[in-house]
Amino acid sequence: MTQRIYNFNAGPAALPLPVLEEIKQEMLDFAGTGMSILEISHRSKPFENVLNDSIARVKRLLGLSEDYQVLFIQGGASLQFSMIPMNLAIAGKPLDYVDTGTWSTKAIKEARLLGKDVRVVASSQDKEFTYIPSEVPVDGKAAYLHITSNNTIRGTQWRAFPDAAGLPLISDMSSDFLSRRFDPNPFALIYAGAQKNLGPAGVSIVILRKDMLARVPKELPSMLRYTTYAENNSLYNTPPCFAIYVCDLVLKWLEETIGGLEQMEKINDQKAETLYGCIDSLGFFRGTARADSRSRMNVTFRLPTPELESKFLAEAGAAGLGGLKGHRSVGGCRASIYNATTMEAVRALVEFMKDFASKNG
Amino acid sequence: MTQRIYNFNAGPAALPLPVLEEIKQEMLDFAGTGMSILEISHRSKPFENVLNDSIARVKRLLGLSEDYQVLFIQGGASLQFSMIPMNLAIAGKPLDYVDTGTWSTKAIKEARLLGKDVRVVASSQDKEFTYIPSEVPVDGKAAYLHITSNNTIRGTQWRAFPDAAGLPLISDMSSDFLSRRFDPNPFALIYAGAQKNLGPAGVSIVILRKDMLARVPKELPSMLRYTTYAENNSLYNTPPCFAIYVCDLVLKWLEETIGGLEQMEKINDQKAETLYGCIDSLGFFRGTARADSRSRMNVTFRLPTPELESKFLAEAGAAGLGGLKGHRSVGGCRASIYNATTMEAVRALVEFMKDFASKNG
Repeated sequence: MTQRIYNFNAGPAALPLPVLEEIKQEMLDFAGTGMSILEISHRSKPFENVLNDSIARVKRLLGLSEDYQVLFIQGGASLQFSMIPMNLAIAGKPLDYVDTGTWSTKAIKEARLLGKDVRVVASSQDKEFTYIPSEVPVDGKAAYLHITSNNTIRGTQWRAFPDAAGLPLISDMSSDFLSRRFDPNPFALIYAGAQKNLGPAGVSIVILRKDMLARVPKELPSMLRYTTYAENNSLYNTPPCFAIYVCDLVLKWLEETIGGLEQMEKINDQKAETLYGCIDSLGFFRGTARADSRSRMNVTFRLPTPELESKFLAEAGAAGLGGLKGHRSVGGCRASIYNATTMEAVRALVEFMKDFASKNG
Repeated sequence: MTQRIYNFNAGPAALPLPVLEEIKQEMLDFAGTGMSILEISHRSKPFENVLNDSIARVKRLLGLSEDYQVLFIQGGASLQFSMIPMNLAIAGKPLDYVDTGTWSTKAIKEARLLGKDVRVVASSQDKEFTYIPSEVPVDGKAAYLHITSNNTIRGTQWRAFPDAAGLPLISDMSSDFLSRRFDPNPFALIYAGAQKNLGPAGVSIVILRKDMLARVPKELPSMLRYTTYAENNSLYNTPPCFAIYVCDLVLKWLEETIGGLEQMEKINDQKAETLYGCIDSLGFFRGTARADSRSRMNVTFRLPTPELESKFLAEAGAAGLGGLKGHRSVGGCRASIYNATTMEAVRALVEFMKDFASKNG
């Protein structure tokens, strides 16, 4: 029979088991069409229902006003690093970025590659990106202010967003999208690769405030213009239908099984507190992010020696706890506890950590 | 129980039933990982095996030499319409295109949008794109010559490719990729959205002759440079893992169950001959493409009146024959008979057509 592990992957990551079971159950015949979801036309009513249902669910979950449009775009957050400055820059105005590591750094690099006037207005590079800057200077002369809400690699997360004072705020929320409540209204654009909290790899969600569409240059390639997606309900060309379908199932699970963002946030807080509590209490593990900047999605930690880390990862894997290796750029250990990672999985990890500490401490 | 229809969709389209059954069977536990294919890391060994296996299968099926590299890129053929001129144009040299309708026309439009010197060196616009031009002037001064091997909307297909006399030949093969044998060596680049013959929507395959990489401008955004994909084995960022996995299963089916391109071509020829034979013999249906330019993938036809066409489509649908409506831009009827559409499906359609003609002729 199927033996499922406890999956702490950083992304692609665990999906809710009922979602996987539903995909499996209807793989040969989607919604009575006599076809797989992989085989139906993107211009058919059954697919249009999937697309519109997922958009409506995102709007409800986040409480988005009619000022916002929800788009699905291929290419991951990495393509958004370029599309944002291509579409939303304004001649003569600087683009302001906060650098909280890796993904912010890449977003900055891509904006500069386009020849834009990019300013890094705050950074935590001085301490290896282990914290979130508390002071962010906001300059009304900028075209926008870009932040990265959660850093999967360093395990840091903005607990409160900076007050952008009316400046269009843009956030990469790939790794904590729909994990907690927040006020969407200061944001001009929110983007997220699906493969953490939303669905499988292969689609990104882009939530755009409609006033931003006026900035989009007409001479951009069709597939790189936000207007193309906005005017065609993300159906200008064939979208990644299956990925959107899985997102819809995950959104349905989040709304109907979990009960929405307030409930999801409670569960995520409980998971994070349990895991950080274990790290802080045992005196064996060491959290790598500054306490006030700790991510509730990616819990990064070290053991006393690299040898113990290797042993920990090997024994955890053998015990059915997977995906605990830190990112190759920083090493150490990391437990990603996205929405679909259950409290049961966290408890199993904590029990394993206690046991490992007592045997090796 | 599951009631599957005969699926003649133009794309996304039918997939081989054994492929769908394998996806279903291992949805909760891929290759003994204890995780779904949707949940595993793109940097894990199991996924790397999938990626490399699919590349090796494409190389074997097409007989590609070591001069070629196989890439997986998001954004569909529509993004390639822009990436090709962005990456492969040469300053001072014109870009030559053959216009055989809709998709060619879009490729030309995107190249012009980038401000390139685009020349349409041959076209079948004079007769509503119902044929493939027999004469294509080849000018060695051009940076490349671009064609579209099959037009899904007009039901036309290049039966033999033009002799490019050493000029880099580029083809959009989205709708007939891996449907027949051909000599790949004149091609500098072949691209195909997966959702016809190769897999689900959400990934394109790009086969690039390595000498083309020298043309790629360094200042392009990372996600829009072929070099980024070539240097990272399509793993610069998270790829559309599930779509690549399904492609791999389809490629395995094509190699191991069908027996390769020679066998696939025989089956596809037989399907097309059966269907065109029916159209030509009954004196009721009328093929829309010129006989020498007929596509073996998309069989387009009309009935005596629009009213009969509506009746035909409605009764076909009720009889379990789906996806027969022509493209919204041209109307009429279309049976797409890609690799995964079986001879059994074609025979069922022919029987239905005979019956309909005798009752309504």
